[in-house]
Amino acid sequence: MRSEFETELNNLHIRFSEMAMMVNEAIKKAVTAFITHDQDLAQQVVVDDQKINNREMDLEKKSFEMIALQQPVTSDLRMIMTVLKASSDLERIGDHAVSIARADLRLHEKSTLPDVEKLIQQVSQQVEAMFTQAIESYLQEDDQRAIEIAQQDNDIDRLVQKIKHLCIMDMKNDAQIVENGTSYLSVTNYLERMGDYITNLCEWVVYLKRGKLADLNCRDDQQNRKY
Amino acid sequence: MRSEFETELNNLHIRFSEMAMMVNEAIKKAVTAFITHDQDLAQQVVVDDQKINNREMDLEKKSFEMIALQQPVTSDLRMIMTVLKASSDLERIGDHAVSIARADLRLHEKSTLPDVEKLIQQVSQQVEAMFTQAIESYLQEDDQRAIEIAQQDNDIDRLVQKIKHLCIMDMKNDAQIVENGTSYLSVTNYLERMGDYITNLCEWVVYLKRGKLADLNCRDDQQNRKY
Repeated sequence: MRSEFETELNNLHIRFSEMAMMVNEAIKKAVTAFITHDQDLAQQVVVDDQKINNREMDLEKKSFEMIALQQPVTSDLRMIMTVLKASSDLERIGDHAVSIARADLRLHEKSTLPDVEKLIQQVSQQVEAMFTQAIESYLQEDDQRAIEIAQQDNDIDRLVQKIKHLCIMDMKNDAQIVENGTSYLSVTNYLERMGDYITNLCEWVVYLKRGKLADLNCRDDQQNRKY
Repeated sequence: MRSEFETELNNLHIRFSEMAMMVNEAIKKAVTAFITHDQDLAQQVVVDDQKINNREMDLEKKSFEMIALQQPVTSDLRMIMTVLKASSDLERIGDHAVSIARADLRLHEKSTLPDVEKLIQQVSQQVEAMFTQAIESYLQEDDQRAIEIAQQDNDIDRLVQKIKHLCIMDMKNDAQIVENGTSYLSVTNYLERMGDYITNLCEWVVYLKRGKLADLNCRDDQQNRKY
């Protein structure tokens, strides 16, 4: 028979996974809204973010209670700590989805940049894929896979640089697209930052499994630490 | 006589405060480097960030150990939880100081925007002041003051909007400043985001004192929650 504590721990795990799904949905919707210029969908992302914020506070509250009342040790404590810290990363990814949605709402339909949009779609697909895989590695407690997934952030960063360069060139050539161009740049920056937070999620999978804190957030231009 | 646990808790508190001072230094240096176009100072911020990241990992490790081995309760546990969560916010503020420093390093001296620079200096002074006050409220465990400090984020957001508008107008009028203009916009965005993280720090001061999680991150256009 399951103890009450085991049931609570399992509930915490389920509620964290649900939060991850809510954030995944927010990313998809925000990017789709940006590409299809769907302002209603963008507005939905902004409104739904409150649910993500509430879930983070709910997970924090539950984690604190479990630590205070049950005084868990070793792997159980690690599980709670992972939820506690990784939920902040999820919440921030959700915040960035909202920032993308707000950029959608500011966009003027008349002067869009189709080539830049295509690349933004490409990088957002990379971000979505990395996010899904990071959550899978959490569910499977697969630390080795999490370390590999974190490397994808370098590909995202490279594509981001390419988009920024193209966008600035376009803006230099046509003053009419400067305003929209800054929105495209912002969205690109938010996607880049999401990649960093997903890397943090991968670090928490490593902690969950090994009980050791890892720094997987290495830039291409820095020496890579080996794991 | 102080127990070993009390000494450890006090050390944790001191090491967190030191981390706050390191981050404060990073903000000041990054903004000074941006305003004075001092590339050496900007480079220093990038290099010094590793110390901030190491300190965060060190605080996480120590917090986990203290919870696992000492099983603290009530206010002691709250103190450890605050350090654990607020250190992530500090680390992210440090990351944004690095992003400002990297924007400094990309800036071409020839086509700067003096008017925008003045406003950026003004908003950065607001961010620095808000940060210093938030840390003071933590040291004094003054939850009421923390709630008041969080309101300053609205002033920051308003000034940020003004800067963005001015910057885009300048970029539309002169293609030569488009590239630098995007750096100015990025720096403005980073300062805006710092304000959000400082608001989070204020929330942790409320938690430390009241044991309740607060959401102080209200936008002007949202209904304010009362505390």
